[in-house]
Amino acid sequence: MKNDQVYQPAIGPYDQKFAGIATMMRLPHVPSPEGLDVAMCGVPYDMGTFMRPGARSGPAQIRDWSRFIRNVNPATGIAPFEMVQCADIGDAPVTPMNPQASQEKIVEYFAAMAAGGSFPLAAGGDHTIPLLILRGLKRGGILTEPVGIIQFDAHSDVLQTEGGVFDGDEVNHATFIRLGVEEGLIDPKRSIQIGLRGSQYSVDANDFAVDAGMRMIYQHEFDEIGPKAVIKEILDRASGPMYLTIDIDGLDPSICPGTGYPEPGGLSTREMQMILRGLQGIDVIGVDLCEVNAGLDPSGGTALVAAHLLFESLCILAEAVARRKGRV
Amino acid sequence: MKNDQVYQPAIGPYDQKFAGIATMMRLPHVPSPEGLDVAMCGVPYDMGTFMRPGARSGPAQIRDWSRFIRNVNPATGIAPFEMVQCADIGDAPVTPMNPQASQEKIVEYFAAMAAGGSFPLAAGGDHTIPLLILRGLKRGGILTEPVGIIQFDAHSDVLQTEGGVFDGDEVNHATFIRLGVEEGLIDPKRSIQIGLRGSQYSVDANDFAVDAGMRMIYQHEFDEIGPKAVIKEILDRASGPMYLTIDIDGLDPSICPGTGYPEPGGLSTREMQMILRGLQGIDVIGVDLCEVNAGLDPSGGTALVAAHLLFESLCILAEAVARRKGRV
Amino acid sequence: MKNDQVYQPAIGPYDQKFAGIATMMRLPHVPSPEGLDVAMCGVPYDMGTFMRPGARSGPAQIRDWSRFIRNVNPATGIAPFEMVQCADIGDAPVTPMNPQASQEKIVEYFAAMAAGGSFPLAAGGDHTIPLLILRGLKRGGILTEPVGIIQFDAHSDVLQTEGGVFDGDEVNHATFIRLGVEEGLIDPKRSIQIGLRGSQYSVDANDFAVDAGMRMIYQHEFDEIGPKAVIKEILDRASGPMYLTIDIDGLDPSICPGTGYPEPGGLSTREMQMILRGLQGIDVIGVDLCEVNAGLDPSGGTALVAAHLLFESLCILAEAVARRKGRV
Amino acid sequence: MKNDQVYQPAIGPYDQKFAGIATMMRLPHVPSPEGLDVAMCGVPYDMGTFMRPGARSGPAQIRDWSRFIRNVNPATGIAPFEMVQCADIGDAPVTPMNPQASQEKIVEYFAAMAAGGSFPLAAGGDHTIPLLILRGLKRGGILTEPVGIIQFDAHSDVLQTEGGVFDGDEVNHATFIRLGVEEGLIDPKRSIQIGLRGSQYSVDANDFAVDAGMRMIYQHEFDEIGPKAVIKEILDRASGPMYLTIDIDGLDPSICPGTGYPEPGGLSTREMQMILRGLQGIDVIGVDLCEVNAGLDPSGGTALVAAHLLFESLCILAEAVARRKGRV
Amino acid sequence: MKNDQVYQPAIGPYDQKFAGIATMMRLPHVPSPEGLDVAMCGVPYDMGTFMRPGARSGPAQIRDWSRFIRNVNPATGIAPFEMVQCADIGDAPVTPMNPQASQEKIVEYFAAMAAGGSFPLAAGGDHTIPLLILRGLKRGGILTEPVGIIQFDAHSDVLQTEGGVFDGDEVNHATFIRLGVEEGLIDPKRSIQIGLRGSQYSVDANDFAVDAGMRMIYQHEFDEIGPKAVIKEILDRASGPMYLTIDIDGLDPSICPGTGYPEPGGLSTREMQMILRGLQGIDVIGVDLCEVNAGLDPSGGTALVAAHLLFESLCILAEAVARRKGRV
Amino acid sequence: MKNDQVYQPAIGPYDQKFAGIATMMRLPHVPSPEGLDVAMCGVPYDMGTFMRPGARSGPAQIRDWSRFIRNVNPATGIAPFEMVQCADIGDAPVTPMNPQASQEKIVEYFAAMAAGGSFPLAAGGDHTIPLLILRGLKRGGILTEPVGIIQFDAHSDVLQTEGGVFDGDEVNHATFIRLGVEEGLIDPKRSIQIGLRGSQYSVDANDFAVDAGMRMIYQHEFDEIGPKAVIKEILDRASGPMYLTIDIDGLDPSICPGTGYPEPGGLSTREMQMILRGLQGIDVIGVDLCEVNAGLDPSGGTALVAAHLLFESLCILAEAVARRKGRV
Repeated sequence: MKNDQVYQPAIGPYDQKFAGIATMMRLPHVPSPEGLDVAMCGVPYDMGTFMRPGARSGPAQIRDWSRFIRNVNPATGIAPFEMVQCADIGDAPVTPMNPQASQEKIVEYFAAMAAGGSFPLAAGGDHTIPLLILRGLKRGGILTEPVGIIQFDAHSDVLQTEGGVFDGDEVNHATFIRLGVEEGLIDPKRSIQIGLRGSQYSVDANDFAVDAGMRMIYQHEFDEIGPKAVIKEILDRASGPMYLTIDIDGLDPSICPGTGYPEPGGLSTREMQMILRGLQGIDVIGVDLCEVNAGLDPSGGTALVAAHLLFESLCILAEAVARRKGRV
Repeated sequence: MKNDQVYQPAIGPYDQKFAGIATMMRLPHVPSPEGLDVAMCGVPYDMGTFMRPGARSGPAQIRDWSRFIRNVNPATGIAPFEMVQCADIGDAPVTPMNPQASQEKIVEYFAAMAAGGSFPLAAGGDHTIPLLILRGLKRGGILTEPVGIIQFDAHSDVLQTEGGVFDGDEVNHATFIRLGVEEGLIDPKRSIQIGLRGSQYSVDANDFAVDAGMRMIYQHEFDEIGPKAVIKEILDRASGPMYLTIDIDGLDPSICPGTGYPEPGGLSTREMQMILRGLQGIDVIGVDLCEVNAGLDPSGGTALVAAHLLFESLCILAEAVARRKGRV
Repeated sequence: MKNDQVYQPAIGPYDQKFAGIATMMRLPHVPSPEGLDVAMCGVPYDMGTFMRPGARSGPAQIRDWSRFIRNVNPATGIAPFEMVQCADIGDAPVTPMNPQASQEKIVEYFAAMAAGGSFPLAAGGDHTIPLLILRGLKRGGILTEPVGIIQFDAHSDVLQTEGGVFDGDEVNHATFIRLGVEEGLIDPKRSIQIGLRGSQYSVDANDFAVDAGMRMIYQHEFDEIGPKAVIKEILDRASGPMYLTIDIDGLDPSICPGTGYPEPGGLSTREMQMILRGLQGIDVIGVDLCEVNAGLDPSGGTALVAAHLLFESLCILAEAVARRKGRV
Repeated sequence: MKNDQVYQPAIGPYDQKFAGIATMMRLPHVPSPEGLDVAMCGVPYDMGTFMRPGARSGPAQIRDWSRFIRNVNPATGIAPFEMVQCADIGDAPVTPMNPQASQEKIVEYFAAMAAGGSFPLAAGGDHTIPLLILRGLKRGGILTEPVGIIQFDAHSDVLQTEGGVFDGDEVNHATFIRLGVEEGLIDPKRSIQIGLRGSQYSVDANDFAVDAGMRMIYQHEFDEIGPKAVIKEILDRASGPMYLTIDIDGLDPSICPGTGYPEPGGLSTREMQMILRGLQGIDVIGVDLCEVNAGLDPSGGTALVAAHLLFESLCILAEAVARRKGRV
Repeated sequence: MKNDQVYQPAIGPYDQKFAGIATMMRLPHVPSPEGLDVAMCGVPYDMGTFMRPGARSGPAQIRDWSRFIRNVNPATGIAPFEMVQCADIGDAPVTPMNPQASQEKIVEYFAAMAAGGSFPLAAGGDHTIPLLILRGLKRGGILTEPVGIIQFDAHSDVLQTEGGVFDGDEVNHATFIRLGVEEGLIDPKRSIQIGLRGSQYSVDANDFAVDAGMRMIYQHEFDEIGPKAVIKEILDRASGPMYLTIDIDGLDPSICPGTGYPEPGGLSTREMQMILRGLQGIDVIGVDLCEVNAGLDPSGGTALVAAHLLFESLCILAEAVARRKGRV
Repeated sequence: MKNDQVYQPAIGPYDQKFAGIATMMRLPHVPSPEGLDVAMCGVPYDMGTFMRPGARSGPAQIRDWSRFIRNVNPATGIAPFEMVQCADIGDAPVTPMNPQASQEKIVEYFAAMAAGGSFPLAAGGDHTIPLLILRGLKRGGILTEPVGIIQFDAHSDVLQTEGGVFDGDEVNHATFIRLGVEEGLIDPKRSIQIGLRGSQYSVDANDFAVDAGMRMIYQHEFDEIGPKAVIKEILDRASGPMYLTIDIDGLDPSICPGTGYPEPGGLSTREMQMILRGLQGIDVIGVDLCEVNAGLDPSGGTALVAAHLLFESLCILAEAVARRKGRV
């Protein structure tokens, strides 16, 4: 695949990065995923939030701050825009005040994308959306068996809702892992969570995931074993297709304050980058990054980090998709 | 009614205002409205928001900034804490992610309050809640006929939802006037809106209200007639029981930026204060102040103004309730 | 001209305003002004700034905050998107660190636009750009004689550079009026400035403009005569084609703090809106709004007001262009 | 007095305003008031604050934002730096944690200044300091009889401390008027307060001042009579020497949020400027501007307005001092 | 001790964390420490501050941000609310502008608490307060011999005031260790400081503490030895009763900017959490966390971290108190 | 050299750090470098910036935040103000809108300084200025052969401008290393860069530097080898005179957000401090710290860190200069 065949970010002598329309990484905005290998999009859904909603504005803010991204990964040398056809297709449809209708629209959006052969790189929105993307990938034919999950997050998202702490919609930003396992979308034995922390509702709050075989790396364990051991554990689980989901609250709130439920004591950007770069080469079928709440960090620092992590993720996804399509 | 019979704000030699638990205006926190003439409370509901949710944190922020309030109105001399028994009863119950269930809980909360003889002074939450309060006041027996509404707001909240701009819950923060009229809670001919502005979806966007007989004072008309004419118009309509609802976006966003849908070119604080003071003596049966979105103004300026407007409103409500109870 | 023939803002059941790509007022992004009556664009040039540069990010921030705009002017009933074909054509080209080359590119950009029959509605950038736009309009054939200027600004922008306060580029954000008059682009006798204030370098700092016949309404005179007298004075001068330029620092810095050289004691949003609405019907041939410095007001309040003023200006421009094109 | 004999602000071809050391209005920093007509200084004392201390950083922040000031008053044409010798003498000495010792040091500082024939233009610090300055002016021989006070303030600062709301130091930021009257420094019958507002501790909170003959213009009365009537009232009282004190909370907190006890509904900058310009020509013997709390408005907007009001005040003071010294 | 016997945080189906009155960790607010094992309280005293006062608002802000705390420590499994009776008793009394009177009130407040058998978990206020708490614990009978101190702090707080840098109150936020040693409250040989850094006034600035046998771990030594060696050193000293004091400026200012004297290059949240968890089991008799200056970090990030560290500290204190009371 | 012979920072019983004029580290402000060993100054030049200009305000903000600095390095015991005569000489001259003229003025400014025997410690301004300082040091006779560079930076600043990404001034903040090497000012084989990161324009973007023999330590390599290996590599290269340049964006943007082109994943303050302290004793002939953009971090946190790093650098420079002058 040659440079002039694929979309390139608008950066160069005639495209100042501070100027122009804010698209994801300054790629062209196209009306549909048709013809794309990787479809960048937003999912402005935050109706699954308990504490501080507002992540519906995340995609807009991430687009604006992705102006700072260039072309090539400095650590791995990966040049993703050379490997796959990639563009910004805009945002998934949502219907404010109707969680269920919005969820179905989002699932269908990703189902159509998957059916057309495009792989998603999505910016949330709250952390309900990986469940919806996985449902869509299954409906669209890309996810044909339970997928392994690589999840960066402060929270394990396995909240028990029956007899639990609320009586709202079970599909929310604290349940996607549990539901994904129950629905057969996620293979817990090939799944891993990094960065868990924060006080818990009870001693047994995460028993569901432990019992299901999920590997849960709490931050205090991470402090003992370090990022290289984590990379090894992920690679051990990455024997088949994997799905990568990043809750921005996996990072420390001093780095990413713009999120609904910050938990002090999180990962550093460098640790995140090191781990993601260590995953280059695995078979990722989709990526999301969630919980950027624009209003809670108007300075844009949270969104800037999010844009960087999306670029790191794209480097992995682009290679995986290129390999699936026989290009590398 | 004498001073030592009623709750007083905790301000004085042993109660520094910067210290202690943040309750509404530093009044005692009591577990229920029982025995109160005026029940101050929060309604942390923002599931009726389109653009930027987050007003569920409004009551908490308003409580913290109401520390700056003292006892006596400087313009009218009204000392509301001498006139009625008043306390902070905490917040109405809500259920995140379940708009309908939350709405019913809120209605029942105000119905119980009304049935016990207490009148509400509520801090939102989004501007869905006056509809819910009015339903509660009716169910609880205080609202026995359609009430006149005094509404400060940038938006007329008469959105047509059939064939309209969304397919979510019809009960939301842009419909309460229309639904209130349709349900017989609001008497449009005795109702008045002040501060309407902002670009509109269509030329006929507000025809429902105009046709129903509502008096709609757009900001550009306000600029022509001034606050005294507005006071007169309100008093002309205040021949019976009135309900006062303040959307904080009625004020200019340079004053109150912490709101979900700011519309530049709004009322000044002084205009609002002048009008509210001009209404002293009318028969108000309830008050709400909505759309303070804490996360969008962490400096607290919006909440400080909100606390002041709640105090101004309390001065009116306290006198009305005292009169109803035969005390003045 | 009917609704389905022209571009419409993306607002409605399937286009949530918080979602999607940020274009000017959510209009389509098109690659060139071809076929447009009014071309919305940005001019991300701030190399003419003395004190606090950064207005190059103004267009991006204004686009994001123009999400809040709807279709119809609430005071005049004007529906500009029904009157003219209007879209967002992106930003004029600039060359960082080369003021002269950038200036020429910008002039040529507007010359091409004018030659194609499109009229500009531009978001700056610093207040150098009206000079460049006027040069472009002349080169492109729209400006055929000196135009009258309507300028909202804290500063008169008539700085004498010979023997003056600096030895940099004479084309900068404090000289455009003087140069425009000297170059025969501006007719000072039909021009008017509103909102001038701030301490001056000398008593005779503005003598050039006074001598040339410019009407200069200082803020302290404005306080005496009020907005209606100002409207009348503008209309008296609007006997021919006019150009409208708004320096956002014309507004008070409590409203628009995001600007390079704030001067306390400025216009209110309501005064600006009243005046602009009073100009409906005049023959405006171009509009710019400058000096929104995104980094100095990350909250976006400045950009929100700017978006509103651009909409107000569009209502005037759209009617003028439609009339020129024989549509109204 | 000619231009080259007096200190001039460092603005011009070789003195960019964004560069260099931050002194008051970019005047030279000199070690003592010797030889000065007007001594600009800071008083970084905030130990008299109840609610939110921090005004000790006010002088530093005001210096930085006074970079924006130029030479000539746009409304009156007054060029103060041509009329008097004026410089920045740094800050009065204070002793943290020892209110009484600090007070005495400050009094002595102004006494020495007055004894040397210099008149003060001081930036606070909290609103305790006018009392200390007046004591100093008396001790130094400038204040020989009770002076009339022109006070812009939200609060009347006549707090009764005996049996009052605290048991701390009677000399604090809520008592200076009462103490000044009691000590014979202030002539209440020639004194006037503008902008009073905010809820009060009791109905009779301000009886001391009323009984003493002070003219108290509450904001709600100001709204009725307007700034010109206020100017007239001040001029009527300005039959002898006057002292001007500006509490920045006299302005609305949307304009000046950086202050310890904000009271919504205050003066606008334009009203303040109009009134101050209306006082040109009166015999002012000293000026202070207080309660700029730098940490509560890091954006600097409050300090920028403060710098402007100090310049307006300087225009009055410079003329008065020049007249006393027989120069005009 | 069973769950239904003790106060529990208000989190659950009917107690949304964003709603309701802000108490410490959402525990009940009770009027006195009577019957409590651990008394949570605030000490809104900041009159001992040199540079940037304002920590008097710390307790209020910490309460609001402690909403995010849940029940169980994720690393140690400790569930403190199951081990001891714990509630929020409000704030200690203070008298603005009277440091000495305030100090005595605070000492007496903690003396009464100690005499009643309750152990303090206090939120400051400035770092004067550990001295006052220790005095109170001695007066109340809990501290019967010099206690070992575990102090996280950028500053050693051993300032020599005789011939020193100021002439204010010797009891201030830079002297508590020296005074505590001199008064026999603190056993320096069993005491340890972690995180010291920042430029010093002189080479011998900390000689008092070194000579007294205090273990001082500067940040640059910490970088060499790491948190586990620090834990070991603390445990070696924890042979008897210990007092834990956390100055929030021990953490890096990028994490906790809301403090009066930030020193770049501090501890990370993860290091703090690791060390505190390593102390589980020691005999702590009291805890304070100081120097959260609400106005300097309105975003609340500093207060959120403070709330987390108070929870970590509570886990240690609760176990120690339960053991003292024979419950574990 | 004894204490009373040299300038000392104004900190002590009579010089409260929050008070007084803001000079660099509270040293005296002197009109010229005459007689100084080390000349502290600002270079308010940012016309070499691509993305977000504004660093011209950096020196002013750094001065204000250097109030927090004291006298002695806590890790090395170095007391720089005892070793050399050091003062603040204000800012280098610049000419807004004329990059070339400004550059020449700056070069001449440092040439004169060097010719007089003073060594520079400069605060930027953007990262164009080390090139200008090196040119000045050569012209003034201090730099007599190519110097080794120690550079902390996210960016390598070796941008190829021919055929490159812009057509502006080749002397800008992305080219100084390449131009310095080409002009014979810099010896690439003795030079080293630390902290490089961020996506690149192309795989070969840094080939110029690699080919020239520059040691480039990317952040991802730093993560492998750690700060002590970095210190060793620097010391290996420090066989002759060295120049130290710190781009504040070398630090992570969570620590220093106030910079034009932030790159997440950078150095921590502690790592920077450890490395700088490890360089004590090398022969440094000049220091700059650049890219502090005041407007993008009004909280001042970035400037505070900058002030600390300047103090660390001063400790190295002071010893080197004292040794050159035969004093140590």
